Amino acid sequence: MGLLGAAIVAGLAAVGGAIAVAIIVKSTIEGVTRQPELKGTLQTLMFIGVPLAEAVPIIAIVMGFLIMGNA
Amino acid sequence: MGLLGAAIVAGLAAVGGAIAVAIIVKSTIEGVTRQPELKGTLQTLMFIGVPLAEAVPIIAIVMGFLIMGNA
Amino acid sequence: MGLLGAAIVAGLAAVGGAIAVAIIVKSTIEGVTRQPELKGTLQTLMFIGVPLAEAVPIIAIVMGFLIMGNA
Amino acid sequence: MGLLGAAIVAGLAAVGGAIAVAIIVKSTIEGVTRQPELKGTLQTLMFIGVPLAEAVPIIAIVMGFLIMGNA
Amino acid sequence: MGLLGAAIVAGLAAVGGAIAVAIIVKSTIEGVTRQPELKGTLQTLMFIGVPLAEAVPIIAIVMGFLIMGNA
Amino acid sequence: MGLLGAAIVAGLAAVGGAIAVAIIVKSTIEGVTRQPELKGTLQTLMFIGVPLAEAVPIIAIVMGFLIMGNA
Amino acid sequence: MGLLGAAIVAGLAAVGGAIAVAIIVKSTIEGVTRQPELKGTLQTLMFIGVPLAEAVPIIAIVMGFLIMGNA
Amino acid sequence: MGLLGAAIVAGLAAVGGAIAVAIIVKSTIEGVTRQPELKGTLQTLMFIGVPLAEAVPIIAIVMGFLIMGNA
Amino acid sequence: MGLLGAAIVAGLAAVGGAIAVAIIVKSTIEGVTRQPELKGTLQTLMFIGVPLAEAVPIIAIVMGFLIMGNA
Amino acid sequence: MGLLGAAIVAGLAAVGGAIAVAIIVKSTIEGVTRQPELKGTLQTLMFIGVPLAEAVPIIAIVMGFLIMGNA
Amino acid sequence: MGLLGAAIVAGLAAVGGAIAVAIIVKSTIEGVTRQPELKGTLQTLMFIGVPLAEAVPIIAIVMGFLIMGNA
Amino acid sequence: MGLLGAAIVAGLAAVGGAIAVAIIVKSTIEGVTRQPELKGTLQTLMFIGVPLAEAVPIIAIVMGFLIMGNA
Amino acid sequence: MGLLGAAIVAGLAAVGGAIAVAIIVKSTIEGVTRQPELKGTLQTLMFIGVPLAEAVPIIAIVMGFLIMGNA
Amino acid sequence: MGLLGAAIVAGLAAVGGAIAVAIIVKSTIEGVTRQPELKGTLQTLMFIGVPLAEAVPIIAIVMGFLIMGNA
Repeated sequence: MGLLGAAIVAGLAAVGGAIAVAIIVKSTIEGVTRQPELKGTLQTLMFIGVPLAEAVPIIAIVMGFLIMGNA
Repeated sequence: MGLLGAAIVAGLAAVGGAIAVAIIVKSTIEGVTRQPELKGTLQTLMFIGVPLAEAVPIIAIVMGFLIMGNA
Repeated sequence: MGLLGAAIVAGLAAVGGAIAVAIIVKSTIEGVTRQPELKGTLQTLMFIGVPLAEAVPIIAIVMGFLIMGNA
Repeated sequence: MGLLGAAIVAGLAAVGGAIAVAIIVKSTIEGVTRQPELKGTLQTLMFIGVPLAEAVPIIAIVMGFLIMGNA
Repeated sequence: MGLLGAAIVAGLAAVGGAIAVAIIVKSTIEGVTRQPELKGTLQTLMFIGVPLAEAVPIIAIVMGFLIMGNA
Repeated sequence: MGLLGAAIVAGLAAVGGAIAVAIIVKSTIEGVTRQPELKGTLQTLMFIGVPLAEAVPIIAIVMGFLIMGNA
Repeated sequence: MGLLGAAIVAGLAAVGGAIAVAIIVKSTIEGVTRQPELKGTLQTLMFIGVPLAEAVPIIAIVMGFLIMGNA
Repeated sequence: MGLLGAAIVAGLAAVGGAIAVAIIVKSTIEGVTRQPELKGTLQTLMFIGVPLAEAVPIIAIVMGFLIMGNA
Repeated sequence: MGLLGAAIVAGLAAVGGAIAVAIIVKSTIEGVTRQPELKGTLQTLMFIGVPLAEAVPIIAIVMGFLIMGNA
Repeated sequence: MGLLGAAIVAGLAAVGGAIAVAIIVKSTIEGVTRQPELKGTLQTLMFIGVPLAEAVPIIAIVMGFLIMGNA
Repeated sequence: MGLLGAAIVAGLAAVGGAIAVAIIVKSTIEGVTRQPELKGTLQTLMFIGVPLAEAVPIIAIVMGFLIMGNA
Repeated sequence: MGLLGAAIVAGLAAVGGAIAVAIIVKSTIEGVTRQPELKGTLQTLMFIGVPLAEAVPIIAIVMGFLIMGNA
Repeated sequence: MGLLGAAIVAGLAAVGGAIAVAIIVKSTIEGVTRQPELKGTLQTLMFIGVPLAEAVPIIAIVMGFLIMGNA
Repeated sequence: MGLLGAAIVAGLAAVGGAIAVAIIVKSTIEGVTRQPELKGTLQTLMFIGVPLAEAVPIIAIVMGFLIMGNA
């Protein structure tokens, strides 16, 4: 049951994290396309936003390794 | 059953938290693209909003560790 | 069964609370982008709205801890 | 079975209540953004609407505590 | 089985009732934003509409208490 | 099995009835917002439409009480 | 199994019938809002359309009573 | 198993038939609203279309009665 | 198992056939509303299209009767 | 298991085939509405497209009869 | 289990293939409606595209016959 | 279990591959409709894109044959 | 269980990979339609993007072969 | 159970990663189409964004290999 649990948590974290990063990067690219002179500002916001969005999925991945270790 | 429970709570928290942060960061980037002079104001709102959105997922992650410890 | 129940309630509360806060913060950011002089008013509304939206998820989290304690 | 039932009712109430409050607060913020002079009127409507929307979820939470007590 | 049934009925009633009230309140707020002089009329309609929408969920909640009592 | 059946029928009727009433009331409010002089006509249509929409959910609730009585 | 079957058929009929009536009433209200002089014509169409939409759900409800009687 | 089967077929037929009739009646009402002089033509089309849409659900209801009789 | 199978095939055919006919009739009504002089042409297309859309659901209904007969 | 399999394949083929034909007929009707002088061309395309869309559902129906015969 | 497998593969192939062909034919009809002089070109593209879209569903149907033969 | 596995992989590959090809062909047809002089370029892109989209489904089909051979 | 696992991973990879490639190719075709002189640039981007999107599905396919080998 | 777990995690990672990369590449292609002179900037953003989006899926793939090794 532990191996199945680790698989569920890693799979959901992969879907959630990847889609979340894609949403942020997509809006950054669209912003730079419209206003190229804001490239630095928007890239900074992207670099702030991606770790914030990845935070919970990565904690979930860590918990997945712990669950796998307990199984 | 406890390991499966910890996996479910961490996976749902990862999906919910990541998508919520992505929605907030996306609207911040779009706002800065439209009105670059509001960068400070919007970034402040983003930094207020992200922890508010992360609050319940992180409590859920903590509960997941407790569930894993009880299993 | 109790551990699984605590996981379900915490996971659903995390998804619901995070998405709800993200919706409120997003509309605040969009409002400030359109009318920067209303920043104070909208931020006040956001600070009133977020606890109202978080109320039921946090009660659900508390119930999750009680369920986990009974298991 | 009772602990699982309490978890289901609390989880669904958390999702429903949080999203409902978010919809109301979002429309209030958008209304104030468009017509700032109506802030008082719209805020009053929001304060009337939020308890009406929270009514059934909170009764459901109470029922959840009763179910948990019977388990 | 009765406790699980009471949980299902209360959870679905909470989701349905909260979302329905939110839809009505949202359209009222949007109406007042567009035509502030109709505030009284629209608020009256809202106060007529919310109990009509809450009627079936509240009967369902009552049935939930009866189911819980029979369990 | 009867208690679970009564819960399913009451929960689905609550969701269906509440959302249906909300759709009707919402369109009435939007109609009154656009043409306030039609308030009487639209309110009459609303009062005709709501019982028509509630008819089947309320019969379903009655059937739910019968199912609960047979269980 | 019969009681559960009666619950499923009544619940689905309640959802289907209520939403269908709501769609018809909503389009009638919108039509009257746009062209108030057509009130009689549209109301007649509504009174023709609602029984046609309710026909199959009500037959399904009748079948639900028969299923409940056989259980 | 037969009673459950009759319930499934009647429930799906109720949902399908009611929504299909609602779609047809809705487009008729919208058409009459835009061009009132076509009322007769559109009503004729509606009276042709509704039985065509109801045909398969009603055959399914008949099959449901047969399944119930065999159970 | 055969009775349940007949119910599944009839229910899915009812949903599919009814919605498909509704889509075709709806587009015919909208077409006649826009260009009333094409009434004959569009009605002919509708009478060609409806049997084509009903073909597979009706074959499925026939198969459902055969499955019911084998059960 | 074979009767259930025949039911699944026939039900899915009915839904898929009916919706696919409805999409094709709908676009033909819309095309004729906009450009009545293309009636012949579009009708020819419709008569080419419908059998192409029905091909796989009808093969699936044939397979369903074979599955029913093997059961 | 083999008969059920053949049913699943044929059902999914029927839905996928029919919807895919419908999408291609629909866009061809819309294209011919807008630019009738391109009828030949678009029809050629349609005849190239339909077999490409049908390729994998038909291989899946073949596999379904093999699965049915092994059962 | 192997026959069921081969059915699942072939069914999902059929749905995914057919819809993917349909998306590509549809955009090609729309492109040719808007700019007929680009027919060669867009057709080349379509012939490059379709095999790229079909690559993974066809590998999955091959894997399905291997799974069927091992069962 | 291993054969079923290999089928799940190959099926999901086929759906994900095919839809992802279709999204990329579709946007390339639309881009070339609007600005034919950028054909080289966009095709290069497409050839960079497709392998990046195919990377994880192909690793998943490889893992599927390993799972099939272990079963 | 371990082989099934590895399949679930690899399948979800393949879907999530492929769709996420496709979203990013699509917005890059659209951006280059609108403003070809920003090709370098947008390509750089794409090369930064794709690994960020692939990060969690690839960690999940690694975890999948570990789960497969433990089974």
